Amino acid sequence: MKKLYVETGRPYEILIERGLLKKSGELVKSVSKAVRAAVISDSNVMKLYGDTVVNSLKENGFITTAFEFEAGESSKRLSTIEKMYSHLADNNFTRKDIIVALGGGVTGDMAGFCAATFLRGIDFVQIPTSLLAQVDSSVGGKTGVDISQGKNLVGSFWQPNLVIIDPDTLSTLPEKFICDGMAEVIKYGCIKDKALFEKLESENALDIIEDVIYNCVSIKRDVVSRDERDTGERALLNFGHTLGHALEKLYGYSGLTHGQGVAIGMVMMTKASENKGATEKNTADRIACLCKKYGLPISDSHSFEQIAKATSGDKKSSGRQIELVILDKIGESHRHLINQSDICDYITV
Amino acid sequence: MKKLYVETGRPYEILIERGLLKKSGELVKSVSKAVRAAVISDSNVMKLYGDTVVNSLKENGFITTAFEFEAGESSKRLSTIEKMYSHLADNNFTRKDIIVALGGGVTGDMAGFCAATFLRGIDFVQIPTSLLAQVDSSVGGKTGVDISQGKNLVGSFWQPNLVIIDPDTLSTLPEKFICDGMAEVIKYGCIKDKALFEKLESENALDIIEDVIYNCVSIKRDVVSRDERDTGERALLNFGHTLGHALEKLYGYSGLTHGQGVAIGMVMMTKASENKGATEKNTADRIACLCKKYGLPISDSHSFEQIAKATSGDKKSSGRQIELVILDKIGESHRHLINQSDICDYITV
Repeated sequence: MKKLYVETGRPYEILIERGLLKKSGELVKSVSKAVRAAVISDSNVMKLYGDTVVNSLKENGFITTAFEFEAGESSKRLSTIEKMYSHLADNNFTRKDIIVALGGGVTGDMAGFCAATFLRGIDFVQIPTSLLAQVDSSVGGKTGVDISQGKNLVGSFWQPNLVIIDPDTLSTLPEKFICDGMAEVIKYGCIKDKALFEKLESENALDIIEDVIYNCVSIKRDVVSRDERDTGERALLNFGHTLGHALEKLYGYSGLTHGQGVAIGMVMMTKASENKGATEKNTADRIACLCKKYGLPISDSHSFEQIAKATSGDKKSSGRQIELVILDKIGESHRHLINQSDICDYITV
Repeated sequence: MKKLYVETGRPYEILIERGLLKKSGELVKSVSKAVRAAVISDSNVMKLYGDTVVNSLKENGFITTAFEFEAGESSKRLSTIEKMYSHLADNNFTRKDIIVALGGGVTGDMAGFCAATFLRGIDFVQIPTSLLAQVDSSVGGKTGVDISQGKNLVGSFWQPNLVIIDPDTLSTLPEKFICDGMAEVIKYGCIKDKALFEKLESENALDIIEDVIYNCVSIKRDVVSRDERDTGERALLNFGHTLGHALEKLYGYSGLTHGQGVAIGMVMMTKASENKGATEKNTADRIACLCKKYGLPISDSHSFEQIAKATSGDKKSSGRQIELVILDKIGESHRHLINQSDICDYITV
């Protein structure tokens, strides 16, 4: 079993091993004195893995309940959170009890927010089942809910007590969601890890997925430990995300996945920075090549004006300024603050 | 001006002086680099003091917006919070901007929760205008929202950047709300401050209200600094509250105010502990006398069984146990853990 230790305000471990799902009850027990456990999952994942986790929790003595919501980003709203609260209150959950988030990013974000805010904060364990969640969203303590004005505009920082990653769950993940996760994997290579980037170029990531997950999580762990509340270095993890989020917004959060947005965002931003002389030549092409290899798009038909305009309201914006993440070259990156009004000029090549 | 410094994770000051409302813009500016400020208040308080605060913020250079909600505990729900989020998003609030909570406990709890969760946390300033909020809820960083299963079951710990207390606002507070706040004032005397208790017996609290507020806030500050996340000593502040909350619940959160519930709870609990020999004789009578002096009820017609049953689901409960706060005598208190199932026996005298 691969293990990573995360040093945040409340430290916790990330465990990576095929078949861990069956041991989830025992693992949850090792970090919690809860009497009750609530497994929160969406309608797709609950069907596949709900029983395994619920049974394992029951076998380990937890009074276990399950809360299921309709799969999809459109469930990621406060009305779903309110139903979670009711489920916990109706089942007499106290501050000592625990939530188990079983699923992808939407589940982890929402179950985490619920844990952060029910009774002013209770424990929770992340069991990410999508590649995106395993390499990215389950680590770092960010939780989030969408409102009509934008994605994740509501949320809090709340660290899990444990993250359990079972790469076997990827076997049931539809191809397009694997691609989605690969965008974040490529991102880690771009901003921090040239060796990872080259491994992704020369091999098939899925053949070495445990190593790849470990690589990514360990980069994220390092960054998050140094900047838990996202006031500095952590912003590097948003490489490709400012434009990616803008694109997702332009598509009304359907029709373009998060990973697809990020892939296009990484290529578009790097073309722009290359053009400005801030990035080593040929970098955008290498990123584009890698994105294509893993089934990700590299361009979009919206105009630069439309995309630039859609970046306003991004959480990263601070007053009239916005922070971009720019690669020096593959594996090295820095943050660059520019005026909101200059974004369009910057990305136009 | 009286000043108290609170040493929590994010330290802040509490300022107490008549007429401070007019200086609020200047004071907010001293703790924040925000471009935008949102004054959140209910329909009663906005009418009385909204202009004063909004104008003072504008004069100090803030782009200032106002969000008003219908006065009353029935507004304290997630749908109101969602409207606050929309107001902030529609007005392009960023992580650097600030919320100003102007009003009583409901306003502070909700605006605080909104600040804690919008963009994963932004700054906020408390300007409590009710006695209850001035002596209690505005200090300590607890925020809360009700759900149908109970009061404040949702919330988070989020410290304000500053608390501005202007006792002049009490002049417009209806008598019954003064009484409501006095229940908490009496509570501070009971648990920690014999001299305060005796001052309340011998004088009229309203004649010396600045001193009384300072006394109470300073007790709360001390307790909160030692136990920010409410895992130990802070529970003492709940003297009278376990039974008080149960009573509020039995009345469906209308017809009995929080302060009335607490007053009855303090007397009922102290009669019980006196009866068990845990509390100095005559203590319950002295508390009852003081409650009556300040217009508070001291008994209720619900049966002990009904009240005991309504204590289940209290946030303070931990599994099947519940923590009671018991006075040794006036000014000294301790926590006492008992089984949920023994509550009825305990309070029956």
